Amino acid sequence: MTKKHASIHDVARAVGVHPSTVSRVLNARTRHLVSPSVAARVTAAARRLGYTPDQVAAGLRTRRSSTVGVLIPDLANPLFPPIVRGIESVLTEAGYTAIIANTDNAAARAREALERFAARRVDGLVLAGVVRRDPLLPRLRALGVPTVLVNRTVDAGGIPAVVNDDAAGSALAVDHLLALGHAFIGHVAGPQRLSTGAARRAGFLAAIKAAGRAVRESAVAVARSYETGAGAQAGRTLLDAHPRLTAIVAANDLLALGCYDELARRGLACPRDVSVVGFNDMPFADRFSPPLTTVHIPHRLIGVEAARLLLEAIAHPETPAREIRVAPELVVRGSTARPPRGRR
Amino acid sequence: MTKKHASIHDVARAVGVHPSTVSRVLNARTRHLVSPSVAARVTAAARRLGYTPDQVAAGLRTRRSSTVGVLIPDLANPLFPPIVRGIESVLTEAGYTAIIANTDNAAARAREALERFAARRVDGLVLAGVVRRDPLLPRLRALGVPTVLVNRTVDAGGIPAVVNDDAAGSALAVDHLLALGHAFIGHVAGPQRLSTGAARRAGFLAAIKAAGRAVRESAVAVARSYETGAGAQAGRTLLDAHPRLTAIVAANDLLALGCYDELARRGLACPRDVSVVGFNDMPFADRFSPPLTTVHIPHRLIGVEAARLLLEAIAHPETPAREIRVAPELVVRGSTARPPRGRR
Repeated sequence: MTKKHASIHDVARAVGVHPSTVSRVLNARTRHLVSPSVAARVTAAARRLGYTPDQVAAGLRTRRSSTVGVLIPDLANPLFPPIVRGIESVLTEAGYTAIIANTDNAAARAREALERFAARRVDGLVLAGVVRRDPLLPRLRALGVPTVLVNRTVDAGGIPAVVNDDAAGSALAVDHLLALGHAFIGHVAGPQRLSTGAARRAGFLAAIKAAGRAVRESAVAVARSYETGAGAQAGRTLLDAHPRLTAIVAANDLLALGCYDELARRGLACPRDVSVVGFNDMPFADRFSPPLTTVHIPHRLIGVEAARLLLEAIAHPETPAREIRVAPELVVRGSTARPPRGRR
Repeated sequence: MTKKHASIHDVARAVGVHPSTVSRVLNARTRHLVSPSVAARVTAAARRLGYTPDQVAAGLRTRRSSTVGVLIPDLANPLFPPIVRGIESVLTEAGYTAIIANTDNAAARAREALERFAARRVDGLVLAGVVRRDPLLPRLRALGVPTVLVNRTVDAGGIPAVVNDDAAGSALAVDHLLALGHAFIGHVAGPQRLSTGAARRAGFLAAIKAAGRAVRESAVAVARSYETGAGAQAGRTLLDAHPRLTAIVAANDLLALGCYDELARRGLACPRDVSVVGFNDMPFADRFSPPLTTVHIPHRLIGVEAARLLLEAIAHPETPAREIRVAPELVVRGSTARPPRGRR
């Protein structure tokens, strides 16, 4: 006698749930959306009713596409590992594997990685290195793969994103220097084609403006990349043009280290002659000489939130895109102090 | 009139090459093995002879499987980004994309990443985090995917590997301390389940033995992981049991930083009271306080060599496995000095 194969509706009726719930349970990618007790009852009923064992087994085992592609612009930049680990902590628990592609900040490499991930039918994408007007956008829209931006975002918006509140961070840095008595404050900005570069610069200028007459001189020099050497170069440009500066807010910690190098090159001491504030709170920031005062960004949390947004986008594609801005904190260490006498 | 479709043999005869050469040219994964001029002639002949344009185009465009999976045990450990970039520099030029999985040193995560890469038919694998008796070995053998180990290797051998010459590195560290006059030298070892931990410890002991009577006291404490906190704990164990030590060779830079912390906790100064030598030459090692004397390992070169070995294994699977040991160099900075008076 041939065993009649039950349908999803039969299983749903037997358990007393909606058929879509049965579907969710039988698909490993969505099982996490159903409570474990309901999932157990559905699975038991499916077996009992003869919902093809292979299908149940396949549903339980199906992991072929339970992958999320993560694009990182620069593996060597120490802020990305915590973001990735935050992403993974959420995705792994939901049954996904994160596979990472390093794009070295190159548009062609990013495009190629995107195409390969799409060809492999990843369930979602997390992009950590978009530029403000990113050439990937049209292709992302065309592919329709659930996508979340992390750390940096695009000017156009429209894609869920989790970023640091850069305006708040810049204000923390500037206010700290003002409180120490600095009136001659410069900014080594990040690349302006990146949202973090643009937002931190805008935040710096807004904070300086809000300080009014308390700031007697301010200036900005833009670093061509978020790297130590570029920071030294921009620091040099800044101090050559504005030698009276007693403090520099750098747009990230690597740029701050570049400022350390430039000050040393000029025979100036930090913080005695010039204070330096970084941004990120990279690993080992407390071990540099001097230990770096910086704006701490909770990168792991940003990764966690991005992964959650992505799971939501996968389960409910109709959810409108939103941008989550995470609050930073100032960490005061040894690279900031009162300005030299005669400069206060 | 229907166009007769030429065969690979027709094309081979027309160009004057072996049919396997024609195959190699028409497959994007292997084209790099053929000189550009020959490849151009083969391609032109294929089109001219009516070797199906789609096949040629497909051969030229086929990239679906041109991927190499890279397993990293810990993205936050700063030695892995340079290895990955070395790997990528070679693979990208050969038409491959590296996709990276972070396993957090967990066997279950490594197994899962391996299975997903295999299911996606990666052309090759690079494993950066194997343990000496790795549970993945049987599965690797069964899968038969070309695989190369990098940075760490397995006791069983049999898989191509590119690693640092740890015996030479340990000898450099110990000899440097002997030259400074140290006679009481300890070792904070890495986890012994890792080949680097075992090899550096063995190298330390061999160098101490070779020094003979020049060393009056030596000792080893094993850190449970390659992390700063574990290094501090092992440093504490070491110094509690052997308070006369004037120098410590740490099995990697993170362990060395842990030793810095333990010395500070004990109110001791480095290098004035105790010298410390690290291993790796991690990014920013020159910016710590004191700047870290360490054994420089050319990680990017190790990655480059591993990728080359992998391309060779892909093209010529019959090649016997070999282990390449890369020579390290000592970088002397500010964490080593002559021992305190009375200890020489």
